[in-house]
Amino acid sequence: MMILGLESSAKSASVAVTRDGVLLGRSFQCSGLTHSRTLLPMAEDLLRNLELSIRDVDAVAVARGPGSFTGVRIGVAAVKGLCWGADKPAIGVSTLEAMAWNGVGAPEGSLICCAMDARRNQVYNALFTFEDGAPCRQTPDRAIDLPALAEELAKQPRPVWVAGDGAVLCFEHLRNRGLDAALAPEVLRWQDAWGVCRAAEGKEAESAAALLPVYLRLSQAERERQARMKSEQLI
Amino acid sequence: MMILGLESSAKSASVAVTRDGVLLGRSFQCSGLTHSRTLLPMAEDLLRNLELSIRDVDAVAVARGPGSFTGVRIGVAAVKGLCWGADKPAIGVSTLEAMAWNGVGAPEGSLICCAMDARRNQVYNALFTFEDGAPCRQTPDRAIDLPALAEELAKQPRPVWVAGDGAVLCFEHLRNRGLDAALAPEVLRWQDAWGVCRAAEGKEAESAAALLPVYLRLSQAERERQARMKSEQLI
Repeated sequence: MMILGLESSAKSASVAVTRDGVLLGRSFQCSGLTHSRTLLPMAEDLLRNLELSIRDVDAVAVARGPGSFTGVRIGVAAVKGLCWGADKPAIGVSTLEAMAWNGVGAPEGSLICCAMDARRNQVYNALFTFEDGAPCRQTPDRAIDLPALAEELAKQPRPVWVAGDGAVLCFEHLRNRGLDAALAPEVLRWQDAWGVCRAAEGKEAESAAALLPVYLRLSQAERERQARMKSEQLI
Repeated sequence: MMILGLESSAKSASVAVTRDGVLLGRSFQCSGLTHSRTLLPMAEDLLRNLELSIRDVDAVAVARGPGSFTGVRIGVAAVKGLCWGADKPAIGVSTLEAMAWNGVGAPEGSLICCAMDARRNQVYNALFTFEDGAPCRQTPDRAIDLPALAEELAKQPRPVWVAGDGAVLCFEHLRNRGLDAALAPEVLRWQDAWGVCRAAEGKEAESAAALLPVYLRLSQAERERQARMKSEQLI
């Protein structure tokens, strides 16, 4: 099965192609340029350099969130358009589960702590172990306060290996709390489309029309709207 | 300092751009397509997607060998042409030293064993430790018989972490000899242009005209020619 994967949930953008779980090619950039400019050209260039076309791909996978509202929306919208145009099915995967594949480089027996900066002293987080060469989920995806995460991690005996765009923030908090935590090395720290492809393997492809982003939290605009409505009711 | 790096020393091909040691973008493929078709388009696409041009680059770095004769020759020739055309200096780095940067994902205290399949039961090899976030060379680059490498490694106390396109070959030999060896996970196993950029940092750039491939061994054609000349002298 050939999968084209797209990842744009935070600052970096990446695309990858795997065939039956083996990486054929990938491109990554962390340049600060907007994903709406870079993501689809990266996919187009990668396929062309592999002498493949979107017609050769069996499904298009995307990190559907959690993550940056704008980033996730660009990734999901791009995949919806691409799948519609090329008549291909889509596979939406958890950003955190895709990122957990980086744990292939974690010391054996580690607890993989995937962390994205969700602002307001929170991270989007899920915990995984790495077993038989693949991540094994230990918690659901969630938005969690850093102190609550530290408290949870303090209760378990494994060393913690922190990856993701919120890794430094999370790692520093855990270390300040005296936990046995390690920071993923830079080449394994960021979410990457390779992990999106790996996480998509074995998942059922669906119509791209049914693909929905997963934000876990309301956007700032929605939070403010709800607060305003609530205060207006109180008046 | 902005460096464009190219790597084509074995089956995979990759390009990367770093600025002051930080990865801005990279592309990798392991498709079996010839590097003479893929390498320069990958560099062109990467720069364009980063909204950079070759004019923005301070130097072009290349894995100058050891490695596949054809692969190394394509990489070095491409960089010579690119540097000549764009009037940029070149930095040739050891393929094995570039690959040693993958050791950033090795367990602490490991000895990084970089191994490329050199055929005839040999590997192109060099050993490194990883100290203060960078590889620290322990041996020169060499072509070495697998039994001799195993004997050398058996004398030192560190666990061995094996990377490179010859990693599986080397790892299996070491394990059969009872050594404490681990295989780099697939995403950290292959030589990558990111390591070429990192290895080039701090090295002096030179005229691309002076850049030379390093093969360590004579090519098969040269070996056969020398053997023929020797046998003709004996007649």
